[in-house]
Amino acid sequence: MQVGTDVEQWGIFELELAGPDGGNPFQDVELSAVFTHKHRAIEVDGFYDGDGIYRVRFMPDTPGTWSYKTQSNARALSEREGTFNCTAAASACNHGPVRVANTYHFAYADGTPYKQIGTTCYAWTHQGDELEEQTLATLQEAPFNKMRMCVFPKSYDFNHNEPEFYPFPLLVRGSSDPPHFWEPAGWEFDWSRFEPAFFRHLEQRVGDLQKLGIEADIILFHPYDRWGFIRMDAETDDRYLRYVVARLAAYRNVWWSMANEWDLARNKTLADWDRYFRIVQESDPYDHLRSIHHCFVMYDHSKSWVTHQSVQHSDLAQVAVWREQHKKPVVVDECCYEGNIPHRWGNITGEEMVRRFWEGTVHGGYVGHGDTFLDPQDILWWAKGGVLRGQSAPRLAFLRRILEESPAAGLEPLKNTGIMPYWFPCAGQEHQYYLTYFGVHRPSRMRFDVPEGEQYRAEIIDTWEMTASPVAEPVVRGSWVELPAKPYQALILRRQTE
Amino acid sequence: MQVGTDVEQWGIFELELAGPDGGNPFQDVELSAVFTHKHRAIEVDGFYDGDGIYRVRFMPDTPGTWSYKTQSNARALSEREGTFNCTAAASACNHGPVRVANTYHFAYADGTPYKQIGTTCYAWTHQGDELEEQTLATLQEAPFNKMRMCVFPKSYDFNHNEPEFYPFPLLVRGSSDPPHFWEPAGWEFDWSRFEPAFFRHLEQRVGDLQKLGIEADIILFHPYDRWGFIRMDAETDDRYLRYVVARLAAYRNVWWSMANEWDLARNKTLADWDRYFRIVQESDPYDHLRSIHHCFVMYDHSKSWVTHQSVQHSDLAQVAVWREQHKKPVVVDECCYEGNIPHRWGNITGEEMVRRFWEGTVHGGYVGHGDTFLDPQDILWWAKGGVLRGQSAPRLAFLRRILEESPAAGLEPLKNTGIMPYWFPCAGQEHQYYLTYFGVHRPSRMRFDVPEGEQYRAEIIDTWEMTASPVAEPVVRGSWVELPAKPYQALILRRQTE
Repeated sequence: MQVGTDVEQWGIFELELAGPDGGNPFQDVELSAVFTHKHRAIEVDGFYDGDGIYRVRFMPDTPGTWSYKTQSNARALSEREGTFNCTAAASACNHGPVRVANTYHFAYADGTPYKQIGTTCYAWTHQGDELEEQTLATLQEAPFNKMRMCVFPKSYDFNHNEPEFYPFPLLVRGSSDPPHFWEPAGWEFDWSRFEPAFFRHLEQRVGDLQKLGIEADIILFHPYDRWGFIRMDAETDDRYLRYVVARLAAYRNVWWSMANEWDLARNKTLADWDRYFRIVQESDPYDHLRSIHHCFVMYDHSKSWVTHQSVQHSDLAQVAVWREQHKKPVVVDECCYEGNIPHRWGNITGEEMVRRFWEGTVHGGYVGHGDTFLDPQDILWWAKGGVLRGQSAPRLAFLRRILEESPAAGLEPLKNTGIMPYWFPCAGQEHQYYLTYFGVHRPSRMRFDVPEGEQYRAEIIDTWEMTASPVAEPVVRGSWVELPAKPYQALILRRQTE
Repeated sequence: MQVGTDVEQWGIFELELAGPDGGNPFQDVELSAVFTHKHRAIEVDGFYDGDGIYRVRFMPDTPGTWSYKTQSNARALSEREGTFNCTAAASACNHGPVRVANTYHFAYADGTPYKQIGTTCYAWTHQGDELEEQTLATLQEAPFNKMRMCVFPKSYDFNHNEPEFYPFPLLVRGSSDPPHFWEPAGWEFDWSRFEPAFFRHLEQRVGDLQKLGIEADIILFHPYDRWGFIRMDAETDDRYLRYVVARLAAYRNVWWSMANEWDLARNKTLADWDRYFRIVQESDPYDHLRSIHHCFVMYDHSKSWVTHQSVQHSDLAQVAVWREQHKKPVVVDECCYEGNIPHRWGNITGEEMVRRFWEGTVHGGYVGHGDTFLDPQDILWWAKGGVLRGQSAPRLAFLRRILEESPAAGLEPLKNTGIMPYWFPCAGQEHQYYLTYFGVHRPSRMRFDVPEGEQYRAEIIDTWEMTASPVAEPVVRGSWVELPAKPYQALILRRQTE
């Protein structure tokens, strides 16, 4: 009986065990543990970390005494028992994992609303420590609370560099600049084993994000691949998924994204993607959020294992449609990125990037950011991290603050309440809070038909200049409010109750 | 036998006859004439113009000698014969009526391409001479070659004034400011007769537009009505249509628009709208263009009597879809107007108005303009005319010049030709001319995959600053062109052949 040190609620308890290192421990050795607290028993998978070391990680969600007992087909790893004490969450940014809340929104496990302001650095963990630490320093000052990031490295325009680590032992080095970035380029790996150093590095970066209060939306497969990671056989795919989940699920800030642009992976069937979802769902004891991102063809987000809709689209008004269609939160992870590259998806202005966030917001959803400016060293934030070159980030910080001051229950589209007689999108909570956004429209005044007998305080928001100007007169049914008649204005109405 | 004076090709020959003025000549007297040139015989309806005067108007389309012979149930109007000489078109702006050309485009009868840059002053002919003449003076300096205008006056926000003339004799004056602008407001008319002064005034204004080279897109019905013109019985509707056609069809610049927002006229059925189309089609000897404009529900533009699609929509990329759907030209008559009023459709910026014109253009269609700025006297261009307050008009003049210098055959969407590897919309004529537009996107460079072995001259167009900057290097397959990396840029490639 081993007595562990204290572990914070939603922190990681890690059991390290020495075991067999002969043969192929990745496939030969089975290891799991059951963690028990009062009436609850949770079984989690362990994993082989190389050099004869095995680990079992566990994220306790309830303060108090937890006990555990391992089971394994290796005697050295079997029947190991112990206890540890879980203390209440106390460290900064620890609100537990993010869950779906109120059908269309998100909240941390402790009930704190989570207002998603995402960004994208697909391959940031494959760039070496110097650039990765610069990325973390940038994130520390940035407004983002979610990062879309791939497990595997990326092969694409601007992405010809090789990572320091590969997830499987390298047998034959191939080309870094094949004729097409997603054709096989002569690389060979030992698919029967994993490379623990790769995953230790990935975990370190997920932990770094956790310290910054940033959710890691971990993309498990993607088609931009010259190494063969998108062409593994089904058995390897499944073993890979279980290994990633065993290693990473105990990180409270993990979300699972089955794919970036699943529909471009031409060798996979829809049944493959369904299976991946089920494996992750079955292996992850904590039920982290699960989604899948598309390019042209949307996956059926109504399937039970999808927790929220991860969308690529430029028309943010559609968010309200998708919400109703699947009754799940909508995150438009890709709506084009601020930048100046030739690619259509990577050259909108900062104004347009910010406009799309606000449009998504007033249609009841959440939006993702990216930054794609040409760079002499090909260091583009969207793939590699580094520094932000665009103008949107401070405006997204401003939006995030407004969202965090908005109703905890979330902003629901209120199109048919009659409050906006001139047909602008409006979201909020009826009789309490209304947010409307005018985008490229610039009315010089606006009437609000708030419910009869209620009184509201109005604030005019300049989403680009980042100002909030209170309106002196209270707003009642039929009130007109004078507006600055320029683009990118929003208006908040807050119920006055005295 | 009467011998008339010379009439220019596509001008108006008018036969004036004295006839009975007792009873109700509008309903009792039938009058038509057959006009003959060589083997052709064209029958046209005459009309009663009040005070015992009857008229038959005819637009000859072929130079040479034409003869005519009337028929009527009134002896004084029957068997009247004569000839006149039609001379070749010579006056400025006389290219004949506009027709559909090359499936998706328009041309005048003489073959000159017609590149539609429309505007909207729904009720401009109901404002009195002073304002109407100001409108004409504005139009003289403006880029527009089409005007959307209603026969009937308009009842709506900003439109509470009464017209000088009503189309039917007024019996009981009603309210100018009813509780809702489209509810009946106590007006009564003698529906069995027309008011010739009303129609003479309308004709005068259509003729004024003709002198300015502006097509009159005449809206025959619309729901914004407090007088009852949208609630006439079917017999009156049909008599009204035949009367309007008899009076106006000889004006070469007439287009027929069955409705503004047909789907908002709650008392009419789809069968009514079909019948209106058929009556106009059968009565108009010149087969002027026919369309119908919607608010929410599109009419089926594939019906044979629809010559082109008149659309209300904000997403101009859909133009390419509607083109393919119905194989007819697309004119997005309403995509929101430049202005600052509260109404969502009337407060976009000049930049956005111009952007929508260019988006419609590169998707193979044509777009309409409007100007809606609050005014202390409620004189908004979109309804009443007057002066333009927006910034888009000079930019639309610049676009019109570019269109008039583009291939006569029209700009076809060339999405799948591979010329734009980075997926921007492109329109033109293959192997000859390519126009691409970047809108809110602002790439800093762009590659063009023009056909192998061909060479092009490139010109960078700043659609807002109205500059065209030639690129020094010729463009061949795979050429990169440096761009200014700001919004609202376009690029033209013209084939070099020497």
